[in-house]
Amino acid sequence: MRSATKILLDESEAPRRWYNLIPDLPEPPPPVLHPVTHQPVGPDDLAPLFPMALILQEVTTDRYVDIPDEVAEIYRLWRPSPLYRAHRLERALDTPARIYYKYEGVSPSGSHKPNTAVPQVFYNAQDGIRKLTTETGAGQWGSALAFACGLFDVDCEIWQVRASYDGKPYRRSMMETFGATVHPSPSDRTESGRKILADDPDTPGSLGIAISEAVEVAATHDDTRYALGSVLNHVLLHQTIIGEEALVQLAQAGETPDLLVGCTGGGSNFGGLMFPFLREKWAGRMSPVVRAVEPTACPSLTRGTYAYDFGDTAGTTPLMKMHTLGHDFIPDPIHAGGLRYHGMSPLISHLYEEKEIEAIAKPQSECFAAGVLFARTEGIVPAPEPTHALAAAIEEALRCKESGEEKVILTALCGHGHLDLPAYGAYLAGEIVDKDWADADVQAELAAALAKLPAMST
Amino acid sequence: MRSATKILLDESEAPRRWYNLIPDLPEPPPPVLHPVTHQPVGPDDLAPLFPMALILQEVTTDRYVDIPDEVAEIYRLWRPSPLYRAHRLERALDTPARIYYKYEGVSPSGSHKPNTAVPQVFYNAQDGIRKLTTETGAGQWGSALAFACGLFDVDCEIWQVRASYDGKPYRRSMMETFGATVHPSPSDRTESGRKILADDPDTPGSLGIAISEAVEVAATHDDTRYALGSVLNHVLLHQTIIGEEALVQLAQAGETPDLLVGCTGGGSNFGGLMFPFLREKWAGRMSPVVRAVEPTACPSLTRGTYAYDFGDTAGTTPLMKMHTLGHDFIPDPIHAGGLRYHGMSPLISHLYEEKEIEAIAKPQSECFAAGVLFARTEGIVPAPEPTHALAAAIEEALRCKESGEEKVILTALCGHGHLDLPAYGAYLAGEIVDKDWADADVQAELAAALAKLPAMST
Repeated sequence: MRSATKILLDESEAPRRWYNLIPDLPEPPPPVLHPVTHQPVGPDDLAPLFPMALILQEVTTDRYVDIPDEVAEIYRLWRPSPLYRAHRLERALDTPARIYYKYEGVSPSGSHKPNTAVPQVFYNAQDGIRKLTTETGAGQWGSALAFACGLFDVDCEIWQVRASYDGKPYRRSMMETFGATVHPSPSDRTESGRKILADDPDTPGSLGIAISEAVEVAATHDDTRYALGSVLNHVLLHQTIIGEEALVQLAQAGETPDLLVGCTGGGSNFGGLMFPFLREKWAGRMSPVVRAVEPTACPSLTRGTYAYDFGDTAGTTPLMKMHTLGHDFIPDPIHAGGLRYHGMSPLISHLYEEKEIEAIAKPQSECFAAGVLFARTEGIVPAPEPTHALAAAIEEALRCKESGEEKVILTALCGHGHLDLPAYGAYLAGEIVDKDWADADVQAELAAALAKLPAMST
Repeated sequence: MRSATKILLDESEAPRRWYNLIPDLPEPPPPVLHPVTHQPVGPDDLAPLFPMALILQEVTTDRYVDIPDEVAEIYRLWRPSPLYRAHRLERALDTPARIYYKYEGVSPSGSHKPNTAVPQVFYNAQDGIRKLTTETGAGQWGSALAFACGLFDVDCEIWQVRASYDGKPYRRSMMETFGATVHPSPSDRTESGRKILADDPDTPGSLGIAISEAVEVAATHDDTRYALGSVLNHVLLHQTIIGEEALVQLAQAGETPDLLVGCTGGGSNFGGLMFPFLREKWAGRMSPVVRAVEPTACPSLTRGTYAYDFGDTAGTTPLMKMHTLGHDFIPDPIHAGGLRYHGMSPLISHLYEEKEIEAIAKPQSECFAAGVLFARTEGIVPAPEPTHALAAAIEEALRCKESGEEKVILTALCGHGHLDLPAYGAYLAGEIVDKDWADADVQAELAAALAKLPAMST
């Protein structure tokens, strides 16, 4: 009898606290600065957009935050999520490595995003908020927030980038099925949207424009707030439920990890899995290598600059010190839409700067090849985002085949690819082309974006 | 602390045998007849299409069939599947009923179909078969067979109804990602396809045509066989893994069911859940009502005739005694494509005739309403097929609200609706229209189809 394929936890074994990395950091992270005064922001600066409970979680120095009962009860719709041993992938690679994946595709919207959408809506609902606004590009975050709002009877208004609204009708239908109202962005419902439409009625839109519209509506209505699906400390805090479960599951399998690998866009899936393992590493209980994988088309860690920059394209958010490609860098339209963000979570950036984590970049053709191999062996069609982590896991497993090392590799499979299947169709039809990083146009575009970083001493 | 949301079984608790209902039937089912001689078919008649192991399973009188180790190992990629208590749906309905659902959407292709695709491919591979052909309409069966073929290195060639090939590109991409070759049907690769194309180059195709193409290729190549995803005894046998697991899970929850409800197309999901419970009922250990739910647009049990009929539109298969709307009845193009079959599994038909099960029909607008309520409370967007079962479960739960009865309702949630989201979009946009059964056109169409049943004494 071979060892188990799925390591499941009973609901009674579910972690009851989120883990806050900040007090355990060897060095404290730099403060967030006001976009105008360049002074550290205080809670009042953020109050128009977020409820105080989340603002306090953003800056707390407590090592643990209790998960409210109401949130824990909803988590039980899909959590604890399964940890899989990739027996069939290992055999296909003929590797002595043992590969595990923590699968978040079992959630209602099919990714890790509901882990933070649910508590965000809960804290807003507790404050009497009647509506949340947000933007969505790939659609994972919009779907998760739509689901969570429905549970707490909070209205959800989503600006979906026009190109995505037209090209991803399945995502829009999912958001509407969960009860959300979805507008194409730019829309005629906001000042910023109308301005863009007046200039260019046929614009495909952008995430930056959609953020502006969602923030504008939240900022101008008392009963409405805004929600963000990645980057911020409180978002990564909520996602640590992934790593806390995986720690228990891996221990039940009798394993200690040698390599942890996850994809990074804004950093929430990566931080969610890795933070509890970093705590264990710092406590001397294990010593895994922790590796981030980003697309070569949007390589904020491996090619960006560590500097203060805006979170949005329009340059209206507080300034965060992070690895950035410049807030008006527009990545190529690769299929892993969730990884197309110019910056990186300040906490992940700080860990990278402190050499607590590694980072590499992968072209999407290699990632889709990994995704197809994974689907044909393990049966799950992965979202394009986690295929980056799978490609890196496979690379390491093949190194183990050469060296004979029996490494234990744990990877974050943060979502399924059911709503991304046309991207697989394009890959199988040979339509996926990678731009080389030596491409002069791309380098020039990046240099121009970096040149526009806010001028300040960092 | 409320009772559990998910009742999970460890892999070590997985059933190791499929259950064969036939020896426990109060009355034996009528034989299958040769399409030309009208005599009972023997194994040799079926050998060009199916491997002997499956032919023997089709007629076995053993109560249990061992699940081969190779199949059990693959089942562990998603089995045992979870049993859920629908706490949030119950609260939304304000019902004293306790609603449970057995969820098969966790499988690689998102439905119950891999439960039989995997053993079918296994037995064919054991016989040295190098290729399997099949047809697909809605795409659930094609996806499942594509996945299973990939695991055993058997080529998979699928004829997808032209309208589905063009209108459901996500399904086609899934089949190709799993490694299958997909043709639109009619195609120029078969005699039957070329004949149809010559007559009507722009035909949208039909399931009947696609079956003819897949069967033609299998029958004319020695190393190629054909696979069917429902209706037949061996298919329902494999699906009993669902009911065997659910029995254990419901007992762990401390419950005895009062009502079992499932949707019926060909009958494989329904039989898979119900047969083990019927065994328990006949043994006097419980006394649930067992209810089948079909669409009003294709009501083979509630409006069909119990008679010998062909399984395919062209009239080339063996004759099965079943509830049928006539083999050339073309149901309205409703979104629950998996329920658009003119006949019903002979075993399910026999049970209905013997009054061991009930049947009702539901219009699709009521079913989509149930699906949206389910998605907004339980978080899972159901496939259009099982929304029929959900609508019936909700109907019963609302009756319990009136009566105060604390009934235990178990329903089969046989798949997710991720690849059916445009149908939800159409429903939410008010574009779903039900034809009334009093509609004269529909009645005339049905009467004409029934008039063409094979002439024989039944």
